Amino acid sequence: MAIITLTTDFGLKDHYVGSVKGAILNQSPSAVIIDISHQIEKFNIQDAAFILKEAYPNFPKNTVHIIGLQTEYTASGGYVALEHNEHFFIGADNGIFSLIFEEQPKTIVEIQINPKLKSIFPVRDIFTGIACKLASGTSIKNIGNPKQNLVQRLPFRATSMGNIIRGSVVFIDSYGNVITNIDRSLFEQIGKGEQFVIELARNNQIERISNEYNEVPEGELLAIFNSSNHLEIAMRNGTINTMLNLKLNDSITIRFQ
Amino acid sequence: MAIITLTTDFGLKDHYVGSVKGAILNQSPSAVIIDISHQIEKFNIQDAAFILKEAYPNFPKNTVHIIGLQTEYTASGGYVALEHNEHFFIGADNGIFSLIFEEQPKTIVEIQINPKLKSIFPVRDIFTGIACKLASGTSIKNIGNPKQNLVQRLPFRATSMGNIIRGSVVFIDSYGNVITNIDRSLFEQIGKGEQFVIELARNNQIERISNEYNEVPEGELLAIFNSSNHLEIAMRNGTINTMLNLKLNDSITIRFQ
Amino acid sequence: MAIITLTTDFGLKDHYVGSVKGAILNQSPSAVIIDISHQIEKFNIQDAAFILKEAYPNFPKNTVHIIGLQTEYTASGGYVALEHNEHFFIGADNGIFSLIFEEQPKTIVEIQINPKLKSIFPVRDIFTGIACKLASGTSIKNIGNPKQNLVQRLPFRATSMGNIIRGSVVFIDSYGNVITNIDRSLFEQIGKGEQFVIELARNNQIERISNEYNEVPEGELLAIFNSSNHLEIAMRNGTINTMLNLKLNDSITIRFQ
Repeated sequence: MAIITLTTDFGLKDHYVGSVKGAILNQSPSAVIIDISHQIEKFNIQDAAFILKEAYPNFPKNTVHIIGLQTEYTASGGYVALEHNEHFFIGADNGIFSLIFEEQPKTIVEIQINPKLKSIFPVRDIFTGIACKLASGTSIKNIGNPKQNLVQRLPFRATSMGNIIRGSVVFIDSYGNVITNIDRSLFEQIGKGEQFVIELARNNQIERISNEYNEVPEGELLAIFNSSNHLEIAMRNGTINTMLNLKLNDSITIRFQ
Repeated sequence: MAIITLTTDFGLKDHYVGSVKGAILNQSPSAVIIDISHQIEKFNIQDAAFILKEAYPNFPKNTVHIIGLQTEYTASGGYVALEHNEHFFIGADNGIFSLIFEEQPKTIVEIQINPKLKSIFPVRDIFTGIACKLASGTSIKNIGNPKQNLVQRLPFRATSMGNIIRGSVVFIDSYGNVITNIDRSLFEQIGKGEQFVIELARNNQIERISNEYNEVPEGELLAIFNSSNHLEIAMRNGTINTMLNLKLNDSITIRFQ
Repeated sequence: MAIITLTTDFGLKDHYVGSVKGAILNQSPSAVIIDISHQIEKFNIQDAAFILKEAYPNFPKNTVHIIGLQTEYTASGGYVALEHNEHFFIGADNGIFSLIFEEQPKTIVEIQINPKLKSIFPVRDIFTGIACKLASGTSIKNIGNPKQNLVQRLPFRATSMGNIIRGSVVFIDSYGNVITNIDRSLFEQIGKGEQFVIELARNNQIERISNEYNEVPEGELLAIFNSSNHLEIAMRNGTINTMLNLKLNDSITIRFQ
């Protein structure tokens, strides 16, 4: 029996998470259910996509990931199951998958639902059943008909012009660390080892990349490539963001000499 | 080994939830423990009753549900274990069971405790032991002596007079959706398909029932029967309650033509 | 397969907890993972030490406890695995262990890491691997080289002079209960059964010890020895701390006649 993970904006207080877990265990008593997050910002697909993209590769192959966010059924989107990188994903085709995967997923199928049985709680009433099938080894081809295209939302990507990289804030974690969409390969390709300045709000700037948080004194700003090789602006044992007041999608510029 | 669920007002920060789970695993290493909620409003029996009532029917038969709320031992109430609808429940007899079940539970037993061993942490010290016994198949009749009556608290129920239904708010979820105690069968019985107006605070009103959240534009009010057939006042992708400022137990009136 | 618990300041929203659980399951598919808390105050070792100290003895022998807090690698501290009271602990040697254990732990080993592989996410990249080894029965002696001393931080301890005990606040739980470092044995040794006054902020005082929360009327102050025999100042069904405004490390004095 494979693992089933949950990524939702349900919050942890209400009965929704418990109901979904109950429904899974009712169908697959030996299922292993793992919470990735239930505290995604309400209705925020970008937030959910970032968290799931970072977390899912840590799980074993064949893990099934349920996305419980913006799950209202629409004729244009509908519900889909995907296989990619030997993981399975179930959710509404609301654009979130285009933010999680940089390439076209290997297999996409459309989940057929009886219009008369349309549920206002599809995570519990529809997704758990599909998840239990996939977790118990049912081939994704038997879940639904192949689908070619997913709803696309354009992720913000870092761009470069000459010796300047312009990226943006893609996530601010609970420590106040600011994670950008600038990855190490772009940085090295444009920078070629030259000196640089990372320009931040309120005239703050950083002129070096740290390898560890504790390379700088407590309370000082630093830039570091995080565990998924994205440039992160952080403050050692402090909350950078009180100081810089950066927001999601704010731009970050790196100027090389 | 059956499942053991937890519904408490412990919160998630302190050592209480971890201690209870440790105690369960110490007694039943293969127990499957599922959190329903630990963020019940402190001491709020109505809040816990609603959440557990909605969540528990999703679990498999023979699941054991521990209620960790208002668990101080009182001579009048004491601690009880119940069997109802093929589920088991353990908690203090503080009135919560009268809010969860509309009928008298099938079996009620009183949990005997040694007065010298009275604990100020009965969920860990008493309830986990009972839960492990029930989860491993011990008959509830061997848990304690039969008890006839439970402490009663009167739940607010929707009432009707002529062509008017008067209900009240029983829960406000983390999306700001307002769930009422008006169920579909009362609505249909009184309404007989006639036109109606749902009267809400601040001169807002709704004149139709939606089948899905996305039948209305974003940010617009709607009324829908939720997944347990209770009338819910919601706002598509928005937080209704900032607008209406409804509170628990506020009244909701439906006037049919 | 033993149990692996997590005590961190990661919070529950971000991808960190999910990533760590995924990494554990990737290495040990049958691991049982239990959250003790992910809502430790950021970087607060005292907070984490208190919660883990209270929770861990409830778990079965051989449980492995991962501490994910202040985990930056420092040459002075480094990462350690410990065995004590037949439980295992993994964390950075940042002083936290001296706050959890009153005696020297039975076995301490240093976790060797390849400096080139130093991670900025050691809980996921280093601790999970060690935890899975210990949970599957690898001897702690095979985890690393013995280490004699741990970084020491002096815990605040209650002291006495004549007929006065002076202690301090070590934890304030989510109910607002104030837990002190005054334990029952010191209280009995100094007090010898005499009358006493517990002196609190704002001229509040308590002159007796309760055995249960419900010995006093709702909303009234009480003192009680909690389930780990520490003196706790509480308010029945209320939030004492709104009234007293006590803070961590504030002093509490007991004056016997």
